[in-house]
Amino acid sequence: MSDGSTPKRAKVEITQNHDKVDWRKKKAELQEAKKQRKEAKLIKQLEKQKQSETEAAEKEEPLPQSRSSRGRGYTVSVALPGSVLDNAQSTELRTYLAGQIARACVVFCIDEIIIFEEHGEDVQYLRKCFFPKHQDLQYAGLLNPLDIPHHMRVDEEAEYREGIILDRPTKPGKGSLVNCGMWKEVQIDKKLQTGLRVTVHLNKKQKEEKRLIKGVVVPPHVPRTEGGLYWGYSVRLASCLSDVFTQGPHKEGYDVTIGTSEKGRNIDQSTLPAFKHLLVIFGGLQGLEASVDGDQNLDVTDPSVLFDLYLNTCPSQGSRTIRTEEAILISMAGLRPKILSAFSSGAV
Amino acid sequence: MSDGSTPKRAKVEITQNHDKVDWRKKKAELQEAKKQRKEAKLIKQLEKQKQSETEAAEKEEPLPQSRSSRGRGYTVSVALPGSVLDNAQSTELRTYLAGQIARACVVFCIDEIIIFEEHGEDVQYLRKCFFPKHQDLQYAGLLNPLDIPHHMRVDEEAEYREGIILDRPTKPGKGSLVNCGMWKEVQIDKKLQTGLRVTVHLNKKQKEEKRLIKGVVVPPHVPRTEGGLYWGYSVRLASCLSDVFTQGPHKEGYDVTIGTSEKGRNIDQSTLPAFKHLLVIFGGLQGLEASVDGDQNLDVTDPSVLFDLYLNTCPSQGSRTIRTEEAILISMAGLRPKILSAFSSGAV
Repeated sequence: MSDGSTPKRAKVEITQNHDKVDWRKKKAELQEAKKQRKEAKLIKQLEKQKQSETEAAEKEEPLPQSRSSRGRGYTVSVALPGSVLDNAQSTELRTYLAGQIARACVVFCIDEIIIFEEHGEDVQYLRKCFFPKHQDLQYAGLLNPLDIPHHMRVDEEAEYREGIILDRPTKPGKGSLVNCGMWKEVQIDKKLQTGLRVTVHLNKKQKEEKRLIKGVVVPPHVPRTEGGLYWGYSVRLASCLSDVFTQGPHKEGYDVTIGTSEKGRNIDQSTLPAFKHLLVIFGGLQGLEASVDGDQNLDVTDPSVLFDLYLNTCPSQGSRTIRTEEAILISMAGLRPKILSAFSSGAV
Repeated sequence: MSDGSTPKRAKVEITQNHDKVDWRKKKAELQEAKKQRKEAKLIKQLEKQKQSETEAAEKEEPLPQSRSSRGRGYTVSVALPGSVLDNAQSTELRTYLAGQIARACVVFCIDEIIIFEEHGEDVQYLRKCFFPKHQDLQYAGLLNPLDIPHHMRVDEEAEYREGIILDRPTKPGKGSLVNCGMWKEVQIDKKLQTGLRVTVHLNKKQKEEKRLIKGVVVPPHVPRTEGGLYWGYSVRLASCLSDVFTQGPHKEGYDVTIGTSEKGRNIDQSTLPAFKHLLVIFGGLQGLEASVDGDQNLDVTDPSVLFDLYLNTCPSQGSRTIRTEEAILISMAGLRPKILSAFSSGAV
């Protein structure tokens, strides 16, 4: 049957092309994963070092008041289903929507954004949307800038900066050189692998005439916990709603969780307990109810039992629906003073 | 000089074309203005009638408790500079941004949106953006629906509906027929000009077997003041910031005004007095400071003296900038509980 052969061969070609692209992709992904493992290992080492330093210092003298009051000990995470991006009509607007969500989180100093799947979708799909590469980046130019504190301007004086380890020979006994986005390069206290991303604490007193700036590599939470600065968010993918709760980066887990729903309790009548790691969860087009229904690991029908608080953050709403990108701004604006009170009452 | 003649003639042609379009436009605008005057006149008549009815009723018996507690006596207006639309990168995104602003206002039941000019721009420009017609409507399909209570579904049971007077013969002594977006047409209590837009109070008891539904024309504020419903917003253009304050629709003016600025007082430390007509004003790209500077009628340099309250509605913001479409959601989410307390304290 010659009729069928042409489309068949075409199909084979497409598959081959597909395979080729996949292998190239796979290699890049493996390299990326290796780099991320190295960065994670470095962060762990730095954390351990920091902790033993702190413990040693505490034995000698108590923490100075000014230092502990400047830092922010708690974190705030936001979780939302990847399906919210379906609620956009074109690739341009999908890109724009992802940017709106990022900006809403940045405005309220969110430390972690978790994207969860509602209906067992292909993880690759979410990854593509939120870590756009290649052709997916085509509309990145439409994004409004996050204008976040750790996206420094070159001349800005800053105590901390993000940097990348440079491929430069260093003298024996000296640390690596780092590009921290300044006119001069930064010499850190350690020798690290080229290409690693690091958070650098710049020494307060720098000699102006020196060719290099001196700095110390610190764990990425230090600008927040010691400097009280907002240092951007990490992104985590969760394959279902229950993974949002269980697969977090904090050893002790999230200690206060809030679900948001029009069916929740009026936010005005609710107070927030003090917390170490707060998690605020938003539903998609069909609400959190649909996210709960879609998770086979969850044997509940009433979503309110999953959360410490189940809140309606916009009572008497004027529109029948609130879009997730709007809900983040509205809810975090409503929760902001409650978070503040939770800590000013001295409970932590 | 033959070189110069071609562009010159072309220029004349362009001007002629321009004139032609302008005349057609002008005629349509005059017709539209005439219709709006008629509608305004009708609304005034209805208000007068309503007031004398209320006064007569109050003489006979006091207002029933349930009726007054259901209605909302106050209004909330939002003012922003037309220049916020400059902060979009394409016509599509400009359209989308106008839609975002509309949705933000609807979510918080805003009654009036005032668009003011910052630098003496051409009024026509603002009009084009906010009342799009013809080619400007090309991306209206990108807009997220407002999903507002008075955009009824055909089968929805509602006490009030918006309608348009139909061009139908009516029997002597009977009122006009109105299309209120239902399967049946509505017969009102008055004879009115075809094409006028009206707010109709549908009689509670309707005989199902009747071909027509009975209703009474009411002023457009009645769904809010008596039904406690959100009934959408009106749009007003102001040629400068000072006109925002002075050219309002309320005889008694705005009694409480709030300016929003990062330089304002922390919203958490502020309470709101009770009000009849609240006005919340947002700045553009350069803040309210620029709007004040650009207004020749205002002889102040410090914007805070213009407002009853000058508030920072997002203390400790994580981004250096907050876009106006974000600021509306954040500020109104912060003001919402304060508006509620202003009225629950029994001050009005």
